[in-house]
Amino acid sequence: MKKKINFGVIGAGRIGKVHTATLVQNVAPAEVIAVADVNLESARELAQQFEIEMAVENYREIIEHPDIDAVIICSPTETHVQYIIEAAQAGKHIFCEKPLDMELKKIKQALDVVEKAGVKLMVGFNRRFDPNFHRIHEMVAAGKIGEPHILKITSRDPAPPPAKYVAGSGGMFLDMTMHDFDMARHIVGSEVSEVYARTAVLVDPEIGKAGDIDTAIINLSFENGALGVIDNSRKAVYGYDQRLEIFGSAGMVNVDNNYPDNHRYYNADGVHKNLPLNFFMDRYLEAYANEMNEFCNCIIHDLEPSVNGKDGYMAVAIALAANKSRLENRPVKMSEVL
Amino acid sequence: MKKKINFGVIGAGRIGKVHTATLVQNVAPAEVIAVADVNLESARELAQQFEIEMAVENYREIIEHPDIDAVIICSPTETHVQYIIEAAQAGKHIFCEKPLDMELKKIKQALDVVEKAGVKLMVGFNRRFDPNFHRIHEMVAAGKIGEPHILKITSRDPAPPPAKYVAGSGGMFLDMTMHDFDMARHIVGSEVSEVYARTAVLVDPEIGKAGDIDTAIINLSFENGALGVIDNSRKAVYGYDQRLEIFGSAGMVNVDNNYPDNHRYYNADGVHKNLPLNFFMDRYLEAYANEMNEFCNCIIHDLEPSVNGKDGYMAVAIALAANKSRLENRPVKMSEVL
Amino acid sequence: MKKKINFGVIGAGRIGKVHTATLVQNVAPAEVIAVADVNLESARELAQQFEIEMAVENYREIIEHPDIDAVIICSPTETHVQYIIEAAQAGKHIFCEKPLDMELKKIKQALDVVEKAGVKLMVGFNRRFDPNFHRIHEMVAAGKIGEPHILKITSRDPAPPPAKYVAGSGGMFLDMTMHDFDMARHIVGSEVSEVYARTAVLVDPEIGKAGDIDTAIINLSFENGALGVIDNSRKAVYGYDQRLEIFGSAGMVNVDNNYPDNHRYYNADGVHKNLPLNFFMDRYLEAYANEMNEFCNCIIHDLEPSVNGKDGYMAVAIALAANKSRLENRPVKMSEVL
Amino acid sequence: MKKKINFGVIGAGRIGKVHTATLVQNVAPAEVIAVADVNLESARELAQQFEIEMAVENYREIIEHPDIDAVIICSPTETHVQYIIEAAQAGKHIFCEKPLDMELKKIKQALDVVEKAGVKLMVGFNRRFDPNFHRIHEMVAAGKIGEPHILKITSRDPAPPPAKYVAGSGGMFLDMTMHDFDMARHIVGSEVSEVYARTAVLVDPEIGKAGDIDTAIINLSFENGALGVIDNSRKAVYGYDQRLEIFGSAGMVNVDNNYPDNHRYYNADGVHKNLPLNFFMDRYLEAYANEMNEFCNCIIHDLEPSVNGKDGYMAVAIALAANKSRLENRPVKMSEVL
Repeated sequence: MKKKINFGVIGAGRIGKVHTATLVQNVAPAEVIAVADVNLESARELAQQFEIEMAVENYREIIEHPDIDAVIICSPTETHVQYIIEAAQAGKHIFCEKPLDMELKKIKQALDVVEKAGVKLMVGFNRRFDPNFHRIHEMVAAGKIGEPHILKITSRDPAPPPAKYVAGSGGMFLDMTMHDFDMARHIVGSEVSEVYARTAVLVDPEIGKAGDIDTAIINLSFENGALGVIDNSRKAVYGYDQRLEIFGSAGMVNVDNNYPDNHRYYNADGVHKNLPLNFFMDRYLEAYANEMNEFCNCIIHDLEPSVNGKDGYMAVAIALAANKSRLENRPVKMSEVL
Repeated sequence: MKKKINFGVIGAGRIGKVHTATLVQNVAPAEVIAVADVNLESARELAQQFEIEMAVENYREIIEHPDIDAVIICSPTETHVQYIIEAAQAGKHIFCEKPLDMELKKIKQALDVVEKAGVKLMVGFNRRFDPNFHRIHEMVAAGKIGEPHILKITSRDPAPPPAKYVAGSGGMFLDMTMHDFDMARHIVGSEVSEVYARTAVLVDPEIGKAGDIDTAIINLSFENGALGVIDNSRKAVYGYDQRLEIFGSAGMVNVDNNYPDNHRYYNADGVHKNLPLNFFMDRYLEAYANEMNEFCNCIIHDLEPSVNGKDGYMAVAIALAANKSRLENRPVKMSEVL
Repeated sequence: MKKKINFGVIGAGRIGKVHTATLVQNVAPAEVIAVADVNLESARELAQQFEIEMAVENYREIIEHPDIDAVIICSPTETHVQYIIEAAQAGKHIFCEKPLDMELKKIKQALDVVEKAGVKLMVGFNRRFDPNFHRIHEMVAAGKIGEPHILKITSRDPAPPPAKYVAGSGGMFLDMTMHDFDMARHIVGSEVSEVYARTAVLVDPEIGKAGDIDTAIINLSFENGALGVIDNSRKAVYGYDQRLEIFGSAGMVNVDNNYPDNHRYYNADGVHKNLPLNFFMDRYLEAYANEMNEFCNCIIHDLEPSVNGKDGYMAVAIALAANKSRLENRPVKMSEVL
Repeated sequence: MKKKINFGVIGAGRIGKVHTATLVQNVAPAEVIAVADVNLESARELAQQFEIEMAVENYREIIEHPDIDAVIICSPTETHVQYIIEAAQAGKHIFCEKPLDMELKKIKQALDVVEKAGVKLMVGFNRRFDPNFHRIHEMVAAGKIGEPHILKITSRDPAPPPAKYVAGSGGMFLDMTMHDFDMARHIVGSEVSEVYARTAVLVDPEIGKAGDIDTAIINLSFENGALGVIDNSRKAVYGYDQRLEIFGSAGMVNVDNNYPDNHRYYNADGVHKNLPLNFFMDRYLEAYANEMNEFCNCIIHDLEPSVNGKDGYMAVAIALAANKSRLENRPVKMSEVL
């Protein structure tokens, strides 16, 4: 058992910073020794902030670095498959942000290379590591609600991304709802069999002009017979809304949002509390730490990550089915896209 | 302005008893002077319990009774249209339980007669008069949430009806979800334009054998652009689950279930509260009283009831669209059934 | 067993109206046949509102009326003892508002007459009949919290009474805290042994000028070893605050305020709910009905009321001890006042 | 401005471990370079766990160490004053656990030395740094509740300490309630003027035999006119109970306990949530980090710690007044002990 794991981070953008900070501050066995970004200045800033030795422009310097055990891929989606393949072939363990890619065939290729290389691949579905959702998963798995019948996920962002971002994001389902698709499979404990997506542009007409949507209700059917529904909005004025409820033959369990503190204020107007934690960097702070700790643990003890390549593949597949459903306004069987 | 309104109740079953008790105990201007039921014994029992003078077998004795101002129709669904027509022609005001009928054409005929007769017709969507849902309606109407984007209704019964009842009920959508369809139109303040229903038999296989379902998620699109979703189950082990949430451009408002008291009990196992009020006779006690008071008020002051014939018609239409969607597994436009 | 109980109400003020309305609307076996008030106009108005036959100026016409079975005494405190004695001697059952009197000796005299007369005497501690407090009482009595250790009562009014009222009220402890003293004995299930009262005038200097207080924290010791604390204010800007918590060796149970509905409103400022029910006429609506129903039940089935003369006596005794403690700024043993 | 602060920890017991872990993991500018404990083995274990260079038996090696900027005093209470004096004279900044001592005179001496030496002294009232209590403090200070009228603190431990510990602890008020006394002054923003303590032994007779108590209700009067009450128990079967409420002329604000997650579980028995965080190491995890970060910040920017020597002194004084009140069963003015 190795004590320290040397990490290289590829991509010094928003999520790259989150993972770097987490590894440095909250993951005892991790040592981040290099950061790469096509914008070298970004890499240097991040490296400086966390006293990381090496900042490079070319990701290959990380993948080929002999002291690096594992890479964190936070670069744009279209580079994921290539980087995964190269890193796997170089014998590095891989943590990759979602989505793995927008094409299932390409993801399949990457997973095959990973499998042959025998390295670990973990996909960044951080929400599974949130204490609330984790508790729900445990309770469902322990049979506390009996057979699952109805899953409900509410997932709303505090503000829409810039229209420019939307254009290259693959659309709301691949960019945002993807997390909910993964959560749905994870909590219900069964594969999705059919998807129906009802969508609208109610938040920002620019998003519509870019060919995307900002509001959706997505119905899911599961192989075990359960039904599910996800509702999404790109803009909740009260902040980041992340709730889940699962109902079954023997009970129901749900979780609410997290708040910065639990005060209640009573005045002549009513009773008031503050807004939920906003945004993912606050709400999922603990989840990111748990996620990276599990990744290290899998490397150290040679375990399969609980969120693996298949999970990354399936979430993309459901998103593609949802896109198809949206465009054709009809329920789409998963077998049509798989 | 007349001070007392004389009522005749047609149908002395479960809901007939509820309305009779409400009128006698909680509606000052109401006087119930007659009860009719094809089972005369039932009529007599109800009459005796509330010291009502007259108990008869034939509903015509009520409709033709010169002292009766208004009738409460609680008989089986298939009789509603006929009784409405006869009562209207006799100049009686009419409160009728839902559904008005299972055929839109017949409902239309009844509404035409009512209109010509100039009598009041109110339909029994009691939930609109629940203080929780009423408050939501007021807040949405007052613009508190801005433009409505997403409506969510959870509506689950504590236990399925006997399979025998199911067979004659017209199915879950016409029997149970109907209340939710009405609530959806009421809260969103716009007509439904398209319906997609995803259903299952997860509670009781006998219900499936009877050709019906016991679990459903129904997507709604509204003419004003909002999206909606209703989830139903015939059996929640924790009781009667009646919640609603509406999300819009400027905020969200939701309501939880009602509980018999608000104690919290802390012991070594955790923190506990009791089950929600179970069943509609407890949860909607106040709603029934408000409903009948409004009906009297409409008669006394010659006002249009807030839940009128069109509301009764539209809820049936949505239920028929949901049935069609379920059978054909596709979204159904309201124009296909109207 | 007699079916109907004929009531006469003495005192047509605020609480007299509450009890009259309750008896007429919510207590099936009750028939209010007479109302008396020294202000005949008030008696007439109340009688007219509820279609009561008889409105008189002199309470004796009620006490001596042969058809009256029971009297509701809602007149000023200084008349209570006299009216109780006369009513008991006339063989009427008696419901009397709190406090029975401000002198324990006089209360004792009245209770002796009641006992000899063999009539029922119930005292108006309505809060015991509130579903929340009732539930707590049941749970403590059932051993759910083990041995009681710490009782906490919060009792705050929405607004102070006029200084004029305060002057004749006997002070906050006899007027307002009295309810909490009764509740404390009732919930803990043991007699108070010692009292320490810490008080202040923080709400309205006029109340201080009238020799009274408007804010208090009162410590109680109970014979069974438990400790208790009551906090009072004459003015909570957010309304009527009525909470209770009891902590014991095996658990804790508490109750919150009641609200008109249970909506939550989320906007860009936070999460909001409305104010608690305000004032006692709303909060204790159900309690008043339960109270009067129990009184009737005790008469019909010849049972001892659950809130009897001794309860009325003890609550006054604790209030007197609290007054003594306040004036002498020291803990006062109940044996000093009993 | 110095970037790194070198720390020496004196006392490697439970709280010494908490502070060491916090400094190492959560306080960027801190470097722990030495640990001392009379039990050398304990010092070595702690040093090894966090890769600290130096583990010694004699605290003087820390106080005299030229590279050490600040000491954390976590040794037994009777050593605090001596260590503070020596550390101050050696020019070290000082963080000391509560209570500073059990005698006010000795504390005064230590504070004088600290003042002359011009070093920082911070006292370990960690709860002030809890996000919940911090928020309350901010809101009160900002005038959100108007003038404070009534403060209520509930503070209950999950289990009593061993009787052996109790004997040397100075009693519950100096050991446990001390935190609440500090919180009371902090939140109300005014000094305590008078104390009355009502106590009992209800949890463990052994505690009574050791001359201490395990249950208490303590009344406080404040110089600004507000009243306060603290209730304590050494054993809440549902865990660590830490709540606070403050009521004023313009509103009220309160905080509840913290829970490990926010799930609600509904089954046929009721609605359930889990137990609050238990014990202080979980509940106040974030508070400990905030506390040490402030201490570093005060050193780096030459600021007065928000919890200083006077705060340490006053909390002891109130505890002594409470002890006197308990023994003499009478309200005790602060002027009697100061």
